[in-house]
Amino acid sequence: MQSLGCDVAALNTVHFSNHTGYRQFKGTRATAQEITDLYQGLCQSNLTDFDVMLSGYAPSAAAVEAVGAIGMDLKKKSEKPGSFFWVLDPVMGDQGRLYVNGDVVPAYKEIIKQADLILPNQFEAEVLSGIEITSLATLAEAITAIHRIYSVPHVIITSVQLSKLSQSGCTPTPPENFLTVIGSTTQSDGSPRLFRVDVPALDCFFSGTGDMFAALMVARLREAVAAAGNGLQSTASWVSPDSVSATTLPLAQATLKVLSSMHSVLERTMEARNAELAKIALETAQSEGLVDDAEERQKQDYLRRTKAAEVRLVRNVQFLRDPLVQFEAQDWRREDLPAALQ
Amino acid sequence: MQSLGCDVAALNTVHFSNHTGYRQFKGTRATAQEITDLYQGLCQSNLTDFDVMLSGYAPSAAAVEAVGAIGMDLKKKSEKPGSFFWVLDPVMGDQGRLYVNGDVVPAYKEIIKQADLILPNQFEAEVLSGIEITSLATLAEAITAIHRIYSVPHVIITSVQLSKLSQSGCTPTPPENFLTVIGSTTQSDGSPRLFRVDVPALDCFFSGTGDMFAALMVARLREAVAAAGNGLQSTASWVSPDSVSATTLPLAQATLKVLSSMHSVLERTMEARNAELAKIALETAQSEGLVDDAEERQKQDYLRRTKAAEVRLVRNVQFLRDPLVQFEAQDWRREDLPAALQ
Repeated sequence: MQSLGCDVAALNTVHFSNHTGYRQFKGTRATAQEITDLYQGLCQSNLTDFDVMLSGYAPSAAAVEAVGAIGMDLKKKSEKPGSFFWVLDPVMGDQGRLYVNGDVVPAYKEIIKQADLILPNQFEAEVLSGIEITSLATLAEAITAIHRIYSVPHVIITSVQLSKLSQSGCTPTPPENFLTVIGSTTQSDGSPRLFRVDVPALDCFFSGTGDMFAALMVARLREAVAAAGNGLQSTASWVSPDSVSATTLPLAQATLKVLSSMHSVLERTMEARNAELAKIALETAQSEGLVDDAEERQKQDYLRRTKAAEVRLVRNVQFLRDPLVQFEAQDWRREDLPAALQ
Repeated sequence: MQSLGCDVAALNTVHFSNHTGYRQFKGTRATAQEITDLYQGLCQSNLTDFDVMLSGYAPSAAAVEAVGAIGMDLKKKSEKPGSFFWVLDPVMGDQGRLYVNGDVVPAYKEIIKQADLILPNQFEAEVLSGIEITSLATLAEAITAIHRIYSVPHVIITSVQLSKLSQSGCTPTPPENFLTVIGSTTQSDGSPRLFRVDVPALDCFFSGTGDMFAALMVARLREAVAAAGNGLQSTASWVSPDSVSATTLPLAQATLKVLSSMHSVLERTMEARNAELAKIALETAQSEGLVDDAEERQKQDYLRRTKAAEVRLVRNVQFLRDPLVQFEAQDWRREDLPAALQ
């Protein structure tokens, strides 16, 4: 966010030694009271003139509620329509598995009603909509339901593997090694305005890409809304008039820049990681038999591989600042949608 | 540091809502145990391959010791000379007044012995050297004493008002509205190699300039040492051979870039702050009598003025990346020094 010109204040909800991709870490979680206190500290010195809030992982239901109370207070304090915008990443789980306590789910379901844009992954979209995403039809239904149940005007599902879904009615189907990002801004009748962007998947697990997407989205959406003109910046929740098509939405334009930046950074990360893995393989061959304990050897190997895949962000900052836009947004035309949603 | 290309891991020693220049804040201080735990977290996953450590404010003597133990462990782990460098800002007080507990002073006096570069202000240099700085002679004596007592090879005193000191033997004397930064890298006989840089003072109190100086110094000193060649990067503590004069030291070259960046950013900050103060003055005139409570009015005014002087860093990042070097380093030739130090 800073590299794209945003002045940022961070309120940390955890203080960990490293990301959890290492499968071990030390440190502490902020309590709901600590989160609230920090915000009260900002309030008492009149330091709450934020135009965007980005909220991410919170370590308990009470912490989610504390974050929600901050979002609501900032919204209440914002005097003009569009002068405050809340991007909420409902971090709950992935790949069919919750990694937070069960009581975090209803806490998110409550606070999302106040958010302007939410960024669930496919699993979180299922949890929030109550709809299992098995096809393009159910994907569209899930987004429609999220707009309706939570009155949240903008939704992006950050990663769907369309080729794994049943394809009834979907053209064109991206190849297997593609990921699809699906976004929507509601129209005035509450129906979705759906766009999709297909991106080649990289054969590597990176940690922190969700946070990277969210942070870049904050900066790029502000820009796209400013560029849209027509008073969009001072329209509640930055919702474009119905005349704006899905693929020309500021949300779609921002998504293209974000995904282009990410793809360039992650491609270069993977090159550096592959070079590092080759080095590891060579050293492992040379030191064969030095570490007797097979379990310990495996753990050390996992730690090195995880470190090798750390996102090379700082050295690739030019791709954040000047993305080479290499993807395109596609419309879901009415005829592409299942009959019930047309 | 990130804007200059450094990959940074932050270990927070406090979690505050805002800087203490506001005279009020909320939040928590990290305990020594929490600091140590976070470092242990890095150790257990082999994430300690740092080439520089920058340590700043620590909230207790035990926390200073915990930070010191981390610096010593990283130094011990670094296999080759010059592969680890510790920049230590001994944050203890300013303007003749300690703002930490008394027991923090001996804790710093102990850990400084392991540091490569320390960045005391004038008061902290007095505390560490035991010498009151009242003249150019005593200033040189204080730096000489710091090199000798703590075996610390690089020292920068970040702000001295030379025009306030007794001037016996000092040429040229900078005008009253200048601040002077004094630096030194030891020679092989332990004597100082002194340089000074005079910078016009800006008529404004900024918070965080000490941290800005330290962070930029880390990035610029690494660069200057790499540029120096002759194996300086793999020389213990990056100490240049005796043939290198004071003003051509990497420490001096780095100081020039750091001060130039800072001056540009702070000049622009002051312009923005003056515009903000003018707005405040206008609004105050218009709302005269609206807030009855004089004390409350004064407090609100102080908070606004403090916020108005917040350093505009992100929007002026080009001056960090590409400083317009506008200052010069001056030698303290032997004949400029008091007889006892010649």
